[in-house]
Amino acid sequence: MARILYELAAEDDARFSPYCWRTRFALAHKRLDAEMRGLGFLEIPQAVGAPHRTVPILDDDGHVVSDSWAIALYLEDKYPGASLWNFGQQALGLYRALDVWANQVLVPAIVPLAVLDIHSRIRPADRAYFRESREKRLGMALEQAAGADPATRVDAVRKLLAPVRDTLVRQQWLGGSSPDYADYIVAGTLQWPRVICRTPLLSPEDPVAQWFERCLDLFDGLGRRMPAAPIAATSAGA
Amino acid sequence: MARILYELAAEDDARFSPYCWRTRFALAHKRLDAEMRGLGFLEIPQAVGAPHRTVPILDDDGHVVSDSWAIALYLEDKYPGASLWNFGQQALGLYRALDVWANQVLVPAIVPLAVLDIHSRIRPADRAYFRESREKRLGMALEQAAGADPATRVDAVRKLLAPVRDTLVRQQWLGGSSPDYADYIVAGTLQWPRVICRTPLLSPEDPVAQWFERCLDLFDGLGRRMPAAPIAATSAGA
Repeated sequence: MARILYELAAEDDARFSPYCWRTRFALAHKRLDAEMRGLGFLEIPQAVGAPHRTVPILDDDGHVVSDSWAIALYLEDKYPGASLWNFGQQALGLYRALDVWANQVLVPAIVPLAVLDIHSRIRPADRAYFRESREKRLGMALEQAAGADPATRVDAVRKLLAPVRDTLVRQQWLGGSSPDYADYIVAGTLQWPRVICRTPLLSPEDPVAQWFERCLDLFDGLGRRMPAAPIAATSAGA
Repeated sequence: MARILYELAAEDDARFSPYCWRTRFALAHKRLDAEMRGLGFLEIPQAVGAPHRTVPILDDDGHVVSDSWAIALYLEDKYPGASLWNFGQQALGLYRALDVWANQVLVPAIVPLAVLDIHSRIRPADRAYFRESREKRLGMALEQAAGADPATRVDAVRKLLAPVRDTLVRQQWLGGSSPDYADYIVAGTLQWPRVICRTPLLSPEDPVAQWFERCLDLFDGLGRRMPAAPIAATSAGA
């Protein structure tokens, strides 16, 4: 049985994709082993038989699924033990709302804090592609998107996390009394700046930070084993 | 026992606020009567004792709560019968994710389709305030925000509704086998363009449109009794 998860890899092989981390946590939740194979941006289209534009791509013994949400649905269907949805199948639309909120609101708010760090950490061969594709998407130079004031951007992200924070003041996990895919969506997203951003995003006394530490401890420290980015000397601080 | 819901009212007294409709549905779900009192934009700060900037404002026999989400939490706490959360209290964070997704993604995508219709439908006394505050928020003239191509904007909103659609292909309600606050969040948001926009948003064969019709039938046609906006002759059509 060969199971391979294709992930984005930095020059030093760090794994930082917010979507790949959701899948890593989902696989661990299901107690499924996989080889975690790192790819540069330019290698993604050639990674498996049919061309894919994005990672994660899961090759489950020849059955290929891409997109973290589609992979979560596939895993739940194929391996029904240890459900990813603590609130049941009918609540799937609410999990998906959290997923698209993370993709459409949280990720874009973190992008300005991350783009220059990503650019300098990825493989040299990927940098021209990354710059060109992201500048086209952002409609401006990476340096302009990053802007001059990380503190304001950090503040904005912390404010956006309010709905998550409200829940974590009341309960240990977004999934309730035990973690589930809701936790992996947000923790996977936050693992991205943890691994790549030299500007710290969460203040240690934030309930979100404390929950994130619990997430990093899950599955024998799966998330924590990936080293955090060094803090920039000029960073906004905590 | 006096219970008053303060809502935004158009010149012809139509009620169109996406947030007020969430509360209307929540009150009906709890079988709670209320006087629905219409306000112009300029009347909101003076409506109740303490100044509020936005509606809905609920005055529940002297206890005043504003903000649709805060009102939902208050109603559930004060009137625990007929829960607003079919998936339980621990799933509240997921409902909130849907709520903030509607506020931060869905509402802004509908705004360009709605601004000029709102401007022409509200009380004449409110128009200067509406134009000035919205143009400041949007960073451009209302006419510029509305743009020239409603069909493209309609398309974008329909695409954004994909996560809602995916759920409604599988089940009757976002809340599962019976409607709950998840349905009221999205239906309340869609009631806004239904009442105010002269460009139709949903295509009749869309599962979202069919579910929205079911929502309009709830509570003896509570939503349907509010007339839909007339369709503009130049509209993008279905």
